[in-house]
Amino acid sequence: MSKPLIVQKYGGTSVGTLERIEHVADRIVKTRKSGIDILVVVSAMAGETNKLLEMARSLSQNPARREVDLLLSSGERISAALLALALQTRGIPALSMTGRQIGMQTDSTHTRARITNIDTQRARKLLEENHVLVVAGFQGINAEGDVTTLGRGGSDTSAVALAVALGARQCEIYTDVDGVYTADPRMVPQARRLDVVSYDEMLEMASLGAKVLQIRCVEFAHKYKMPLIVKSSFTEEDKGTLICEEDPKMEQPVVSGIMCDKNQAKITLKEVPDQPGIAANIFEPLASASISVDMIIQNVSEQGHTDLSFTLAREELDEAMVIMNKVAKNIHATQVIADAKIVKISIVGAGMRSHSGVAAKIFKTLSANDINILMISTSEIKVSCIVEQKHSRLAVNALHDAFDMASKPAKKSAKKKTAKKVRVV
Amino acid sequence: MSKPLIVQKYGGTSVGTLERIEHVADRIVKTRKSGIDILVVVSAMAGETNKLLEMARSLSQNPARREVDLLLSSGERISAALLALALQTRGIPALSMTGRQIGMQTDSTHTRARITNIDTQRARKLLEENHVLVVAGFQGINAEGDVTTLGRGGSDTSAVALAVALGARQCEIYTDVDGVYTADPRMVPQARRLDVVSYDEMLEMASLGAKVLQIRCVEFAHKYKMPLIVKSSFTEEDKGTLICEEDPKMEQPVVSGIMCDKNQAKITLKEVPDQPGIAANIFEPLASASISVDMIIQNVSEQGHTDLSFTLAREELDEAMVIMNKVAKNIHATQVIADAKIVKISIVGAGMRSHSGVAAKIFKTLSANDINILMISTSEIKVSCIVEQKHSRLAVNALHDAFDMASKPAKKSAKKKTAKKVRVV
Repeated sequence: MSKPLIVQKYGGTSVGTLERIEHVADRIVKTRKSGIDILVVVSAMAGETNKLLEMARSLSQNPARREVDLLLSSGERISAALLALALQTRGIPALSMTGRQIGMQTDSTHTRARITNIDTQRARKLLEENHVLVVAGFQGINAEGDVTTLGRGGSDTSAVALAVALGARQCEIYTDVDGVYTADPRMVPQARRLDVVSYDEMLEMASLGAKVLQIRCVEFAHKYKMPLIVKSSFTEEDKGTLICEEDPKMEQPVVSGIMCDKNQAKITLKEVPDQPGIAANIFEPLASASISVDMIIQNVSEQGHTDLSFTLAREELDEAMVIMNKVAKNIHATQVIADAKIVKISIVGAGMRSHSGVAAKIFKTLSANDINILMISTSEIKVSCIVEQKHSRLAVNALHDAFDMASKPAKKSAKKKTAKKVRVV
Repeated sequence: MSKPLIVQKYGGTSVGTLERIEHVADRIVKTRKSGIDILVVVSAMAGETNKLLEMARSLSQNPARREVDLLLSSGERISAALLALALQTRGIPALSMTGRQIGMQTDSTHTRARITNIDTQRARKLLEENHVLVVAGFQGINAEGDVTTLGRGGSDTSAVALAVALGARQCEIYTDVDGVYTADPRMVPQARRLDVVSYDEMLEMASLGAKVLQIRCVEFAHKYKMPLIVKSSFTEEDKGTLICEEDPKMEQPVVSGIMCDKNQAKITLKEVPDQPGIAANIFEPLASASISVDMIIQNVSEQGHTDLSFTLAREELDEAMVIMNKVAKNIHATQVIADAKIVKISIVGAGMRSHSGVAAKIFKTLSANDINILMISTSEIKVSCIVEQKHSRLAVNALHDAFDMASKPAKKSAKKKTAKKVRVV
């Protein structure tokens, strides 16, 4: 029987310079000594993809996606060849592989293709022959043999898909942070790295703006129950955050993480006539302009009129205001008010499913700190509140304390991390 | 029946910047208007290939050729995608194609692979559909599906091979010079661009150091009788040099070009015992060190001893001297003398086949200018002389005059060129 396989993915900053590539090679040599098979997926060197995109945009206002894919795929190929060379210098029988060579077949939706199949025949043979495969992430080929790319975070998706297809034991995502934190360490000094997060929690965190993993990659891992580990390639420490299935037998912390999304804005329409069809009149023009609305709140109607507020991404506020001012005239609303000085604070925890009182505790904590809640939305494992931006730091720290998130839920002692703590959740 | 096809190849300086790529696109638009099919082959942007090679060498003293091929092939892919985008912006239905996509199949000799077959099925279909194909030069794939590259001047070879496989009318090589000249214009102000050169002449010129075309590409064109045209992408003028078969019905100029190769050095062994096997004792150690010897001259033997001189590339002189000093001891030669201050002046002309007296005219001309000839070598269509370096400019100009090379052989008037005249022959 063949040896266990681990898939490791190194992001753009992890292979951003020749020095970093050498460092990654040293790390792989160490892992290799433990006698397991390794398949490595790499991103383009940091900055490369943007440089190529800028060139394309300077030649064409709306560059053809097929050509963009051929252009961008070069970045990962260069990283793969260079890392393979660095490994060979260290005596490791490494081989660089393009998306095509590793069997990554996709549909033809250029620049955001979906994986249709992975032909693992060659990869399995080469792994059997004891090679370390260094795969150019983010890319595949379609049925016509044209190069495609998988879109934002595509290399993470390549890694998880290959881990699944080759039956890897786990998929390790190496980046410039050493895991998923209870809160952004720049905002909350007591923030603690989480040892374990469930797929569901990670999906909520990712959709609430956690940059560490793309939603698509987590969805893929979740679907196929592939354990994901987020680690830093910049520290020697081997710990990270494991993203896996919820273990019903294990005691869950009630809340796992707290996020503060600053990319928020609110629009309020005053004295909207409270008639059927009014909501459609308001939100359809926004949908037509591809503006996504997040939370919506409607006050209790008074004398046939109501105030209506909704939130959206801050960069879409100006465009939305132009639309809303037109809509207000049509539906005879008296005023349109924009507010860009708000944030969305969210608490995520799979434990909420079995624990009540989380929302109540949030409201009580914020109230005790004289923080007014402007809007609220909840899901099964999440509570989000809109508050004024000036309160954000106080609110996040107060909630982090209230839910005792700095302490580990299990018996292990909560060691303070010294690793680089960049924005995680 | 399908339209006539022209293959155009643009070198590294021709696509060296985004501005140059736009310029090339404009040029293709013009050609396209004349209603012919076009397949374009591009090199990597000038400097890209060296940048990638340097990275590989900094990671590995002896980088694996398979990985180097994947690495280097990225450069041409980037150019191809960018030029295709620039053409699309101009309303041309262009498609970028990698070596694999255009069907370029090679053997597995990484970094200097030989083309084994070109599968033209897809290319023919796309050309029929009226596409302009923009092909990444220099690359193909082997039977295992790994990326290979064709070695020095590989994009020229890609272009000629595709022209042959697709039955193109001609193959145009765009570079930073506007053709093949009778002499290096920096050395001979009267140098004239040649309208036509035969394959045989071009092969001699290329092997004598003319940089404008690689030997391999000319050999390929010769073998399949594909007309080659060398043009500049930096001038608006549409003239260049046609390289084609000798036309026996046409009056040939006796000589076509004169070249001065400064990369020459001479070693002389004094008083070598004139015994059988001595030559082997001298030249085998050089061959083992991969040092190529060009001309060899042996004086008439006197009292069982002779002086022996040979020429070689100047950069190999030091290494060769170390070897020769050892050899001299073994064979009891009295002295080893190095001379790096020599040049090789060569006159090439297919007309020599039918005209005698060329060598005599050369000797007379040099003698009249008090230039001593150190060594001589001849072939069917070439005479080369080694002279002292200090005489090189005088020698070349005197010979250029003596053979009246500034005048066109035919009736057409010899218009003075204003185009950029960079080193050609």
